[in-house]
Amino acid sequence: MSLSEFNLIERYFTTRGVRRADVALGVGDDCALLRVPEGMELAVSIDTLVEGHHYPLGTAAAAVGHKALAVGLSDLAAMGAEPAWATLALSLPEADEVWLQGFADGLFALAERFRVQLVGGDTVRGPRVISLQLHGLVPQGAALRRDGARDGDLIYVTGTPGDAGLGLELALGQRGASAVDADYLRARLDRPEPRVAAGLQLRGIASAAIDISDGLAADLGHILARSGVGARLELAQLPYSAALQRLLPEAAERWPYALGGGDDYELCFTVPPARRAAAEQACAALDCGCRCIGRIEAKSGLRLYRPDGTLLERSPHGFDHFG
Amino acid sequence: MSLSEFNLIERYFTTRGVRRADVALGVGDDCALLRVPEGMELAVSIDTLVEGHHYPLGTAAAAVGHKALAVGLSDLAAMGAEPAWATLALSLPEADEVWLQGFADGLFALAERFRVQLVGGDTVRGPRVISLQLHGLVPQGAALRRDGARDGDLIYVTGTPGDAGLGLELALGQRGASAVDADYLRARLDRPEPRVAAGLQLRGIASAAIDISDGLAADLGHILARSGVGARLELAQLPYSAALQRLLPEAAERWPYALGGGDDYELCFTVPPARRAAAEQACAALDCGCRCIGRIEAKSGLRLYRPDGTLLERSPHGFDHFG
Repeated sequence: MSLSEFNLIERYFTTRGVRRADVALGVGDDCALLRVPEGMELAVSIDTLVEGHHYPLGTAAAAVGHKALAVGLSDLAAMGAEPAWATLALSLPEADEVWLQGFADGLFALAERFRVQLVGGDTVRGPRVISLQLHGLVPQGAALRRDGARDGDLIYVTGTPGDAGLGLELALGQRGASAVDADYLRARLDRPEPRVAAGLQLRGIASAAIDISDGLAADLGHILARSGVGARLELAQLPYSAALQRLLPEAAERWPYALGGGDDYELCFTVPPARRAAAEQACAALDCGCRCIGRIEAKSGLRLYRPDGTLLERSPHGFDHFG
Repeated sequence: MSLSEFNLIERYFTTRGVRRADVALGVGDDCALLRVPEGMELAVSIDTLVEGHHYPLGTAAAAVGHKALAVGLSDLAAMGAEPAWATLALSLPEADEVWLQGFADGLFALAERFRVQLVGGDTVRGPRVISLQLHGLVPQGAALRRDGARDGDLIYVTGTPGDAGLGLELALGQRGASAVDADYLRARLDRPEPRVAAGLQLRGIASAAIDISDGLAADLGHILARSGVGARLELAQLPYSAALQRLLPEAAERWPYALGGGDDYELCFTVPPARRAAAEQACAALDCGCRCIGRIEAKSGLRLYRPDGTLLERSPHGFDHFG
């Protein structure tokens, strides 16, 4: 494959998608030129996807394109930032037109929904590795950070964590499910819905937030570490999808998925008690829903309580490396 | 290698380098938070390096770290933007501490010289692929673009293009040289010096600019295409290093290297005749030097003139794919 074929690929990516007024210069020069409105901070995040590590072999190209953008949108959501611009670094062994068409379709469909403009890219020949950088905007000082949780704050999670971990087991052929449940759980793995609306709603309400791409226990752990606090979690309060409940009838079977499954791209956030009503009002307006699952405590560490009120003892690694 | 080893790598990268006042939040949250001053535009560029394609197998890790940052700084230079922030996406097959130490040393040494703060990153296990995004700042409307060249403008180039192409032949064992010349030419290939100072000096003077990473003929071609003009180049005016002149004693041998060698990361820019004195004053202050090598013409296409004034006929591909 010649260099000019790669140039064709680049042009293919640059003729699609939304055009934003804050892009002074898009693809086609040495740099893109972007305008950040006065009083706004720029939120940036870069994520890399490698086949077999970040999505199963054989994943549809459109799902890979969707996910490459969704993981970055999820980072913006966790900061309460409004999505704006993306740049794409795509290393590919060959110019596979069918794969590229699918990848671009998946990426641009999601980009259009969130009004993200692809403003730059670099397409090179090499192993298949996808890096995508997202840029978002948030009023100065209003971003949701990991370090703001305080003793007594309530802990919430959006959606139904655990679905993606279960979807991965289905994708790898490690378990079966009905067609309806399999479709739902694979979609939760392959086409995560970034909780951008939730992040925007929670500005001024949440004291800390994170997306739970690594699993709820590990990611809540990041909030605790950065905030210098601990937490108690009520296992009985973990929210589950109907599909997960059907496949895992026993409550204790579900905990590892909800706490350690990873790849869910839900938000975990904390709310001071005085803002509880505002948080629940904001949550009620979201189609993903959210649930109070515990409380921040001064004592460091994450303590998990069974439905009967007893403490669940864990190995030092807990659920962090599950899945 | 476990996930936690990769986390160690990330922490290793986050404890070094300059701390800028315009970084509200650096590495360690879902996003970095950055402040763009009022009246400034954000210039962004993403570049990917793959071993064997963008640097020869066996290149020192410190040189790879230098080059990963230098190619992005060169894009900022070509826009006349001042470097500010970088994010790194690093896919590695294993946590090779020696390689990582060298890579980080090379990257941070250059980052400190240009006051670039590494504000985010993603380190994953996979094939060795390095993507780096650079963010710079430029006053609104002052960026040097590719589309501003006009009939009659003078064409300049910084430094001595062709060195990196010759350095690549040395690196691949395709030719020999004295130790002094080999060291110089390998350094030109492995540790390109981004022309950031030149780009800043040329704001308000140059009508168009580009960095010549793909080779002078191809990259000047991008200016011509975007500006809707053509050009004549005087081959006798091409500037050469002493090392290149020693290895290539005949003038006609040198042209393909200077025009198509690639990887030089010099700037090619155009200047309206009325600003010629200002351009040459700006150039005189730069240690890289710059040379007037031709003139923009209304007629499309790039025409190369021999020292005797005759036109050099070229194949349709010209020097674009040389090297």
